[in-house]
Amino acid sequence: MQDVTPRFGFRMIAQDGAARRGEITTPHGTVRTPAFMPVGTAATVKALYPEQVKAAGADIVLANTYHLMLRPGAERIARLGGLHAFMRWDGPILTDSGGFQVMSLGKLRKISEDGVCFQSHVDGATHMLTPERAVEIQCLLGADIQMQLDECIELPAEPDDARRAMELSLRWAERARASFARLAKPGQALFAILQGGTDPGLRRRSAEALIAMDFPGYAVGGLAVGEGHEVMLRTLDGVVPLLPADKPRYLMGVGTPLDLIESVRRGIDMFDCVLPTRNGRHGLAFTWEGRVNLRNACHAEDPTPLDPASACPAARDYSRAYLHHLVKSGEYLGSMLLSWVNTAFYQELMAAMRDAIAEGRFAAWAEETKRRLGDSQDG
Amino acid sequence: MQDVTPRFGFRMIAQDGAARRGEITTPHGTVRTPAFMPVGTAATVKALYPEQVKAAGADIVLANTYHLMLRPGAERIARLGGLHAFMRWDGPILTDSGGFQVMSLGKLRKISEDGVCFQSHVDGATHMLTPERAVEIQCLLGADIQMQLDECIELPAEPDDARRAMELSLRWAERARASFARLAKPGQALFAILQGGTDPGLRRRSAEALIAMDFPGYAVGGLAVGEGHEVMLRTLDGVVPLLPADKPRYLMGVGTPLDLIESVRRGIDMFDCVLPTRNGRHGLAFTWEGRVNLRNACHAEDPTPLDPASACPAARDYSRAYLHHLVKSGEYLGSMLLSWVNTAFYQELMAAMRDAIAEGRFAAWAEETKRRLGDSQDG
Repeated sequence: MQDVTPRFGFRMIAQDGAARRGEITTPHGTVRTPAFMPVGTAATVKALYPEQVKAAGADIVLANTYHLMLRPGAERIARLGGLHAFMRWDGPILTDSGGFQVMSLGKLRKISEDGVCFQSHVDGATHMLTPERAVEIQCLLGADIQMQLDECIELPAEPDDARRAMELSLRWAERARASFARLAKPGQALFAILQGGTDPGLRRRSAEALIAMDFPGYAVGGLAVGEGHEVMLRTLDGVVPLLPADKPRYLMGVGTPLDLIESVRRGIDMFDCVLPTRNGRHGLAFTWEGRVNLRNACHAEDPTPLDPASACPAARDYSRAYLHHLVKSGEYLGSMLLSWVNTAFYQELMAAMRDAIAEGRFAAWAEETKRRLGDSQDG
Repeated sequence: MQDVTPRFGFRMIAQDGAARRGEITTPHGTVRTPAFMPVGTAATVKALYPEQVKAAGADIVLANTYHLMLRPGAERIARLGGLHAFMRWDGPILTDSGGFQVMSLGKLRKISEDGVCFQSHVDGATHMLTPERAVEIQCLLGADIQMQLDECIELPAEPDDARRAMELSLRWAERARASFARLAKPGQALFAILQGGTDPGLRRRSAEALIAMDFPGYAVGGLAVGEGHEVMLRTLDGVVPLLPADKPRYLMGVGTPLDLIESVRRGIDMFDCVLPTRNGRHGLAFTWEGRVNLRNACHAEDPTPLDPASACPAARDYSRAYLHHLVKSGEYLGSMLLSWVNTAFYQELMAAMRDAIAEGRFAAWAEETKRRLGDSQDG
């Protein structure tokens, strides 16, 4: 049986400028790229059934090492047959390493050469996360794509801080790689994470060192943490051309529809972000005509749906007036429908980008789409 | 067109002791009785899609005059095409009159001969609900089955209070009937509500006076408000035999599976209750083996579903371990799945009762089922 497990792989199907249309192979199926991964922090994409996530067009979801190690615990999930069975998602799963979440704990965490010591937000208990333990947890979860533990810093940062965190992340990458070689199942992959803040020189040193270690995929970490859209793109302009063309490139924690379009244009293949579901819970819908704030009174008597042409029932079949009412009333169904609308929209956006790249018209598509999305913002 | 609108009607299909298997006809379809109506307080059965409610087997849902008059407003719903279109439920809808909700406002409401003056829980604004306005609102909503405004008192009550509230409710029934005759669409029906607390004499006077007014259906109100299971059943024993056999009988706000079984045994045809959805949101599941509290640690590593034989995916496909995790983590999906489980279970329970009555084995079925449900309660 072990021989037929699909190995991890990436192949490029088409290229249009720097934008790439590709395909990632994993033990749990293929991922069409550019891909947006819905975020299932605690083993559930918030307010959605797994069937809805799949039907929306998502090939892969992301889950969080940090949250799952604390609750219900990685060993427990392993005893229950792994994360795929636990959360009823039979497609590919990528898990992050916990580095980003630990950063946001502020004073509750302490970083050393060995790893990160932190207090659980669930029960205050002290935990130690090392590069080795992060890999061990992700192997217990059974993640198809795993991420090295990194130190992610907030931006803007002092140059010394950015350099120190980048160099520490390099050493942790090496340790993660060694653990992964011992623990991983056939076909699983470990991605490296580039750090270095917004400093082109640091980013270059991070990229070169990680490429020398020959990972199957490379993530750009430490962006979308306060630096702004333009600075993020400038950093991508510097770093993406350094990355090997035959490996997938993952921009972590990004972003808005505009962020996605501009990053795909620069050669990014994978994304994850909480925006579609978080905004959905807050009454904000993403549509092809721009963002719609369902809290606004202008929707109170509007019988039209968010998008009559959408394949997503939540966008197609429910009136704005009803959505407005549900959001104003704090009803579950409001969060459920808008998280669904946004998850489906993000997948439609990625599918449109994949088509445009395959057909060699990405630049024109991007201009047209940015114009559409930029109009009629009401919130 | 108006001529083909189905008229309201009730026919009895089978009787087994006092238990009745019947069918209610409404402009929006038929209701198999005994029927349990999922509660859609604010025009949504909490945490469920309308398709799930229908697929679970519900023929009819209940919505609340009190909540909808305050938000989004009855006139607004009427302008949007009525409640059926607004909440995407094309089956029958019953609306209560607001009497029960107003009672629970305590000091925020003042009752007079004319009606109830109360302050909105949404924005503090003062509203007046009269028997006439309650009917007008329900006609604006387009409810198939409407309820008269009544005065519902808490139990235990002083005899004078119970008598005064019952007599006021009688006068309000007459006024509601007059308004309904002017405002209702063909096929809609207005039910009367019996009051009188737990006093057999008051209940009898209430029943006789309302029957003399010839309503198409009769509700037993003012129960399940603190009197306990046995007192409730004793009151039903006294009042149900007084009601005409050819009209549906509705026990408002009830109840647990045991309450439903014992009330059906006594000849009740319709129920509504928030228990299945409220308990679902609190981590409690109803199953054929009794109640299951998913918060309990005993479920943390249990890979079995709540009911592998259920037709409901939430009961059949998700492990108790995962449900435990979702509930402990406060995830939307936990509330969504358990509200679904419970809504489906209540419909399965009603379907089983309908079959048992039709086949003349209700008493045996009830004993067997009560034994099953009584076992293995873990919370």
